[in-house]
Amino acid sequence: MHRVVIVGGGFGGLNAALALRKAPVEVTVIDRRNFHLFQPLLYQVATGALSPGEIASPIRNILHAQKNTRVLLGEMCGLDANAREVILADGERVGYDSLIVAAGTVDFYFGHDDWKKNAPGLKSIEDATEIRKRILFAFEAAERETDVPTRRAWLTFVLVGGGPTGVELSGALAEIANDTLRHDFRSIDPRDAAIILVEGKGRILETFPEDLSKAAETVLQRKGVKTVASGQVTQITDDGVTVKFKDREEKIAAKTVLWAAGVRASGLGKIVADQTGAQVAKNGSVVVEPDCSIKGHPEIFIVGDLASFTHQGGKPLPGVAQVAIQQGTYAAKTIVKRLKNEPVKPFHYWDKGNLAVIGRLAAVAQIGRFDFHGALAWFIWLFVHILYLVGFENRMVVLMEWAFNYFTHNRSARLITGPTPGLPAPSAEPEPVTYASH
Amino acid sequence: MHRVVIVGGGFGGLNAALALRKAPVEVTVIDRRNFHLFQPLLYQVATGALSPGEIASPIRNILHAQKNTRVLLGEMCGLDANAREVILADGERVGYDSLIVAAGTVDFYFGHDDWKKNAPGLKSIEDATEIRKRILFAFEAAERETDVPTRRAWLTFVLVGGGPTGVELSGALAEIANDTLRHDFRSIDPRDAAIILVEGKGRILETFPEDLSKAAETVLQRKGVKTVASGQVTQITDDGVTVKFKDREEKIAAKTVLWAAGVRASGLGKIVADQTGAQVAKNGSVVVEPDCSIKGHPEIFIVGDLASFTHQGGKPLPGVAQVAIQQGTYAAKTIVKRLKNEPVKPFHYWDKGNLAVIGRLAAVAQIGRFDFHGALAWFIWLFVHILYLVGFENRMVVLMEWAFNYFTHNRSARLITGPTPGLPAPSAEPEPVTYASH
Repeated sequence: MHRVVIVGGGFGGLNAALALRKAPVEVTVIDRRNFHLFQPLLYQVATGALSPGEIASPIRNILHAQKNTRVLLGEMCGLDANAREVILADGERVGYDSLIVAAGTVDFYFGHDDWKKNAPGLKSIEDATEIRKRILFAFEAAERETDVPTRRAWLTFVLVGGGPTGVELSGALAEIANDTLRHDFRSIDPRDAAIILVEGKGRILETFPEDLSKAAETVLQRKGVKTVASGQVTQITDDGVTVKFKDREEKIAAKTVLWAAGVRASGLGKIVADQTGAQVAKNGSVVVEPDCSIKGHPEIFIVGDLASFTHQGGKPLPGVAQVAIQQGTYAAKTIVKRLKNEPVKPFHYWDKGNLAVIGRLAAVAQIGRFDFHGALAWFIWLFVHILYLVGFENRMVVLMEWAFNYFTHNRSARLITGPTPGLPAPSAEPEPVTYASH
Repeated sequence: MHRVVIVGGGFGGLNAALALRKAPVEVTVIDRRNFHLFQPLLYQVATGALSPGEIASPIRNILHAQKNTRVLLGEMCGLDANAREVILADGERVGYDSLIVAAGTVDFYFGHDDWKKNAPGLKSIEDATEIRKRILFAFEAAERETDVPTRRAWLTFVLVGGGPTGVELSGALAEIANDTLRHDFRSIDPRDAAIILVEGKGRILETFPEDLSKAAETVLQRKGVKTVASGQVTQITDDGVTVKFKDREEKIAAKTVLWAAGVRASGLGKIVADQTGAQVAKNGSVVVEPDCSIKGHPEIFIVGDLASFTHQGGKPLPGVAQVAIQQGTYAAKTIVKRLKNEPVKPFHYWDKGNLAVIGRLAAVAQIGRFDFHGALAWFIWLFVHILYLVGFENRMVVLMEWAFNYFTHNRSARLITGPTPGLPAPSAEPEPVTYASH
């Protein structure tokens, strides 16, 4: 039986596996996480609107009725292209006849990996709960802080990167400050929070048409978010952020900095390229042929964010879920067609449009030749995200949480969990303090 | 204005604060977590049925409309009983006229704190997601393990302690193995898992009438749980558990051991006792007067699991939510009555009954003079837990999750999160492996 190995259970890998449901092949899906994560809603976990379990589904569960498929929890760390084997972290070798690598991206700090500590990105469930903790703890610390400049720094939030993630996070942060937490504190007014969105390019949502950027900026400003364009972040420390403009430099004192400025391809790209002689693009992605395979290795497909596909219009396809879904499905179908000796057409990306949400009743949409924003775009965003969310149960629960959020402005998953600087470990015993009675 | 400080936002502290809603006092609630946790459903987080956010509510949010109340995120580490000040970990002093301490319990390993690493208890959200990870990872590791005895050890789960938590966990584990994961694996059959519940006393659910213990045991055995009574755990290592019986010793090879055998009072009990001269009971709880205050310090109340209250029948009241709720409310009302110079009656615990759930359609109940088990007890358990769960939104979402679980046998929050031995860090890059091509 023809063995298909799929590395990665994200949009690309999962859709490849699903497309092989009835194919006469043996499928092995390898992921280092046991769940498929619906990344487009990760910012809602980071802002306390949803719980992790509500946007993640166990990969095994999604594929459990697919008899030709097994799932391995493990990490690909090497490739033996001659022997046609994937090598896992524990040394196990998994043989393949066709290989689909869909390992996605990781946060990229432009060579400043030391910024990560002070400016976490938003790629995993752990990132999301870490960001949630930092946001919520900042308000808690401000409530207890008596020094005015320090309190100000606790109430200042800087988001680096004005793409969809930065826009979503800053919009949600503004709603947390203005609505959700409005009556929760006694010493501070959460509405005093300064939320600053810094974008290096000339405008936010740079991949959208200019009128939509403008509209998004207007909505954000109405919510109290300050958007800063053409500002290069040159330093991130415990105390805040330094932003360089053409003519000046500005320091922003902030205790909370979030990173949404850049990603690069997973290190698996280089591992595969080293073994196959494939070309690697500037962002670490692997240059693929018109059929998403590697030159000289038609049995190895790279799909999604890890692939650099430039055969449609010259520009690489964008790193969005739709590209990964379509490429994953395409690679699976190509494998089946080859087995049947049927001809294969080159991959063609069908651009269904672009959406970015800003907050309550506000989103921007570009669908075909139509650009629009406001409540209609928001409803489309809602509909599309519920539609693509995996699992009927998750869909129903998320819809219900959204309905509550909409009517109550509450975000019920506002938990500070995990180790927190300035707070004892969750299960630790109090350390008795010594003091003089007075 | 009379200042009431409440330490702890669990059942006791939260209900004390709520009872002071309209009282002419200034209330400060201090907790080291920002949320109230509904502990009775924590085992459902540990077994992937519910998400953390669904059984936790931000304390600020619960109390945000209560104008006389402020909430501090912080940890009490000392008491100055003469100055009437609570001392927080960062040195801040919070003055009180009345103090209610409701700090609850921590896991107790009978002096073997080194067991904690191999046998986590179930007290916090972090404990629950850790246990969830260990249970799910064990099945994943078994799927990939080729050595038969090691695979057997991965599929063996030992629960230490046959009280309600041990019974709930083992029942849920059995349902995970028999139903939820049934079709998810290819190399193992999850139904082969060995689930062993070890109890030191003569029977499980020792605080319930004997016929209910018997009934629970029968149900557990039918589900495939092996219950072991009169067995003392004498060692817990990476490889498993040693159980000592009257006449012999037995070693159980198991990779997953969970602790549900004992708790003792929070270290705050000793801190308060040292300052006030109060007596400390064997389990670390503080002996209180008939009005839940400390002898010689009528302004300090201890409520819930941290209090040793023996004025009703001689035996200390059990460490259950109902006692904490009633004592918290009582202490609050007593403070108000004293301010009005009204007489105060001693605290009287109204025992509403005892419930323990075993699984689907199975629970045991003791209500007044009635003992019963089965589906009716299960429906009562369900109703009572939804009723006491804090927050309308949480109630609706949990009901919905339960409805899905009931009909699909699925548990949708089956996520392996956080650092996992044998797995790379969630956001780490793959370490390329060196190997010889063959």
